[in-house]
Amino acid sequence: MGNKMTVIVFSGDMDKAMAAFNLAIGGASMGLEVTMFFTFWGLNIIRKNSAPVAGKGWLQKMLNRLNRGGSQRLPLSRFHMLGLGKWALGQLMRQAKFPPVEELLSMAKGLGVKFVACTTSMGIMGLTKEDFLPDVDNFAGVATYLGDATQGQVNLFI
Amino acid sequence: MGNKMTVIVFSGDMDKAMAAFNLAIGGASMGLEVTMFFTFWGLNIIRKNSAPVAGKGWLQKMLNRLNRGGSQRLPLSRFHMLGLGKWALGQLMRQAKFPPVEELLSMAKGLGVKFVACTTSMGIMGLTKEDFLPDVDNFAGVATYLGDATQGQVNLFI
Amino acid sequence: MGNKMTVIVFSGDMDKAMAAFNLAIGGASMGLEVTMFFTFWGLNIIRKNSAPVAGKGWLQKMLNRLNRGGSQRLPLSRFHMLGLGKWALGQLMRQAKFPPVEELLSMAKGLGVKFVACTTSMGIMGLTKEDFLPDVDNFAGVATYLGDATQGQVNLFI
Repeated sequence: MGNKMTVIVFSGDMDKAMAAFNLAIGGASMGLEVTMFFTFWGLNIIRKNSAPVAGKGWLQKMLNRLNRGGSQRLPLSRFHMLGLGKWALGQLMRQAKFPPVEELLSMAKGLGVKFVACTTSMGIMGLTKEDFLPDVDNFAGVATYLGDATQGQVNLFI
Repeated sequence: MGNKMTVIVFSGDMDKAMAAFNLAIGGASMGLEVTMFFTFWGLNIIRKNSAPVAGKGWLQKMLNRLNRGGSQRLPLSRFHMLGLGKWALGQLMRQAKFPPVEELLSMAKGLGVKFVACTTSMGIMGLTKEDFLPDVDNFAGVATYLGDATQGQVNLFI
Repeated sequence: MGNKMTVIVFSGDMDKAMAAFNLAIGGASMGLEVTMFFTFWGLNIIRKNSAPVAGKGWLQKMLNRLNRGGSQRLPLSRFHMLGLGKWALGQLMRQAKFPPVEELLSMAKGLGVKFVACTTSMGIMGLTKEDFLPDVDNFAGVATYLGDATQGQVNLFI
């Protein structure tokens, strides 16, 4: 049985992104081969913070204006309160010396965690490779995910 | 170790239902024996679109009026915006030639994915077998789920 | 391959807590060694119902006032409706003779399910051991979780 671990990151919420990276970093530190599959709202986490609004046609533009993406723009799943809750949690994380999402992402990357962006969701949302951070290792679909997941037993959907 | 895969579908959101079916279809295409366990809000996905309001007594009726069910009535987990966001996403899916939930459901079924409806949730919500699509293979509880899950390693909760 | 099962309980929603305990109870009844890892909003489920507002400094106090915790204070993930939806679901559970969260927690405990509280989240939120029920077996981080998860194949994130 493999020493692989996979995390599907469907959510684009800051708190869930923190949990996902924390698990991935923990796994990689223990010597597991970890792959994170970012799909749907989770794609936001690995989108550039500085990219222009993505998409073609007014519908994709509208969706991407609302759902701009970038690790610094992630809302909280609870108590977001127009950004106030998010700001408060950010402060508490700093006090507890817990790194923000951007840093967790770099730490995961530094430990060899593989980042895959889901091409199916990208197609629907009108996102191209240019919209993503250079940290993304692979642009692929469900078959690639299952290839990894069937070789490990820690497979989570977040 | 088994070649089974299980997906618990707890969520009744359209976007999460898409992810669940996409994974199940991918697994079945690769030759895995896939079972989807629909529970709680996820039961909505396999309820008839045309059924009358389910339940006995005013409380169950009220819940089922709000939470009517049927693959065409699923909200988005984000940006639902009284249906506008859902409509927009539906348009984008059509443009990307990505099938709607009803079709994903049929595709999964056609590939032999097993659908199980959780009887515990049905009891609480006052749902009977008649409220569900004929595609449901089995009405069962957590023991049936665990019987399958312990024989595979790709076990997701969505 | 182990007979372990792990459930990460990230969500603090009543309906998801019910699902988590139901799965854990099912697993323990079948002879699996089940561990539940409570993290982030999920910590609320195992916090005392009667504890004073936790945390140091006004930011932690504010967060903990909003996010008070205790199994009796959990909202629904859908249709909470300022508590009306929750009340209605509670009534339906009583009618269906389905136990409330407090009782599910005791049942899980009685069957030997292990409860672990995530120390990383506790640090950010300013929670101490005194804020938790005596039922908690262990206060630990991601390494402890992965030690268990890599020995079982039913590993869920809720």
